Amino acid sequence: MGRREGQAINPDWEPVALTLSSFEADPLTQHGGRLASAAAQFPYAPPPWIDLSTGVNPRPYRAPAPSRFAIARLPDPTETAALEEAAAQAFGAPTADCVIAVPGSEAALRILARLLPAKTVAVAGPTYSSHAAAWRAAGAHVQSTSSRDLASADADVVIAVNPNNPDGYRHAPEILARVAERQAARGGWLIVDEAFGETAPELSVAGGTGQGLIVLRSFGKFYGLAGVRLGFVLADRHVIAALRSVFGDWPVSAAAIAAGRAAYPDAAWRARTQASLTRDAARLDRLLSRAGFETVGGTSLYRLCAADDAPRRFACLAERGILTRPFDLDPRWLRFGLPGSAAAWARLEQALEACS
Amino acid sequence: MGRREGQAINPDWEPVALTLSSFEADPLTQHGGRLASAAAQFPYAPPPWIDLSTGVNPRPYRAPAPSRFAIARLPDPTETAALEEAAAQAFGAPTADCVIAVPGSEAALRILARLLPAKTVAVAGPTYSSHAAAWRAAGAHVQSTSSRDLASADADVVIAVNPNNPDGYRHAPEILARVAERQAARGGWLIVDEAFGETAPELSVAGGTGQGLIVLRSFGKFYGLAGVRLGFVLADRHVIAALRSVFGDWPVSAAAIAAGRAAYPDAAWRARTQASLTRDAARLDRLLSRAGFETVGGTSLYRLCAADDAPRRFACLAERGILTRPFDLDPRWLRFGLPGSAAAWARLEQALEACS
Repeated sequence: MGRREGQAINPDWEPVALTLSSFEADPLTQHGGRLASAAAQFPYAPPPWIDLSTGVNPRPYRAPAPSRFAIARLPDPTETAALEEAAAQAFGAPTADCVIAVPGSEAALRILARLLPAKTVAVAGPTYSSHAAAWRAAGAHVQSTSSRDLASADADVVIAVNPNNPDGYRHAPEILARVAERQAARGGWLIVDEAFGETAPELSVAGGTGQGLIVLRSFGKFYGLAGVRLGFVLADRHVIAALRSVFGDWPVSAAAIAAGRAAYPDAAWRARTQASLTRDAARLDRLLSRAGFETVGGTSLYRLCAADDAPRRFACLAERGILTRPFDLDPRWLRFGLPGSAAAWARLEQALEACS
Repeated sequence: MGRREGQAINPDWEPVALTLSSFEADPLTQHGGRLASAAAQFPYAPPPWIDLSTGVNPRPYRAPAPSRFAIARLPDPTETAALEEAAAQAFGAPTADCVIAVPGSEAALRILARLLPAKTVAVAGPTYSSHAAAWRAAGAHVQSTSSRDLASADADVVIAVNPNNPDGYRHAPEILARVAERQAARGGWLIVDEAFGETAPELSVAGGTGQGLIVLRSFGKFYGLAGVRLGFVLADRHVIAALRSVFGDWPVSAAAIAAGRAAYPDAAWRARTQASLTRDAARLDRLLSRAGFETVGGTSLYRLCAADDAPRRFACLAERGILTRPFDLDPRWLRFGLPGSAAAWARLEQALEACS
């Protein structure tokens, strides 16, 4: 056969794509949620594991299961459109035409990197690693910029996560609007990843979606249903048309449609949950500070804190069946999601004390 | 703002992408499964509609629902890997390394068109319209070739659906292997879409996946769970790495993982269903032929037939609440999926008689 072993499909991105696999490096510093890896690394941890390594709400929305009928057939495009309509309303988007449902905002951010013809990308951070990885894999030149310097970033695509993961940095909507306008003027884009947008609705720029501004939203984090795989992209009609041409006519599952159509119009649950997450985050801060951690920031779905001996504490907590999220980027950091039950709070409190 | 209304993001593909929307043309000749459109067009049809417009098995696999725990969190990569392993075994793939799970083979075929650097594409057909549409949207020059002439197709990417949808054309695996070898020698690919592969396992080339050959598989059709959104791509490790870099770490939902991990190892259900679909397809052929249709072909999940007055018959059946699949490409054609219950068979038989 003609293509030689090791020969790249497309030399621009292939070698980078191959280094992306999360399984080659320490899986626990790549992304949260790697319970199987943690269990293998800490085989004597008492079950059940308490997974605080992600920013997923541990008390999920009680979503209706899709009907047997809905699971069996292709989702009717009118049902997908109704989901997009419900989401657009909840996000305060100008019209549902500028919203597309996608099977997770992770897939969307990676596909945007293949669709938008950008040569240079500036990512405000440190932030969620998939953005830089996706653009590098697509062959773009990626530079990091400090969150504070977003307004002066000079690149075809500028990316900000707002509020930021993991440090909770809050980009002011006015600055984002100005950057979006400047990006539109140069034929570029500002991508604002509002994966944790429900924790700080006052920061959202979803209402200003249009030329030069692309907003990503995630369903699974705030609604506690990450296994459903549902996210949204808000953008002008050109970008939406391009995304539709890639995701096709049935971008999300019947379960995603059923969950989103129930959850997004439920403003009471949203308000109640915003309040309870805020209370829980404050409670977590108190525990962490009592254990000698220094607070760095975060959102009400996760708290980032620091300690000189964070690697030791990470291992100590893991030996007690509590998985947190360490970072290669700063070994002093640990990120904690929220416990979801009284029992989990109690185990965390005890473990923090034992490991401090 | 700088970008003018109507200005393309990327002139190569944008204008085509905008014509792709299924909602601009008659939705019923674009894809099957448009029940809401049908109900709007035929408001006096007696409910419930019987949807025979797709090739989805009307008697689904009884898949276990995912646990509350699985829905709430990000799928662990080890679970996705176990799904890929089960699917690889069922497909007879050489190793699980050459298999990636994707949220529907539709999204995969569209994304392949963005990833593979092909300038010319030959699609054997007439066939499923998304292949040509996806490559046109990506800026490739797409030519149609007759299924019979596949072996002499001259293009960077050659595409065959096997068995073909809608006419059931059966490409011989030996010819496909030869074409794949030739494509590999020129640094190109043969994509074989085995969306209906379970209906003709003897035709599958999934075992020969490697350089030059990409195989697509669909979960939802044979297993009757199209709403779950699950498909697979089998390819060499370069293409798999590229797809992983686009779909990210959580390509499919917890529901898809639960369903696929139960269904693929269930060889007894697969064999039983292959037999019952064959019986049902023969029964459908008898009804259609008695009603004066001429048999064109198909698979055991759908039958394609022809009649000079097919448009009248389509409307007559729709007025009776039975949705079939007409084709712009040949107005004499109608495609029928299988009824799923004794009541549906009886209504179809009566309606075919009344409309013949």
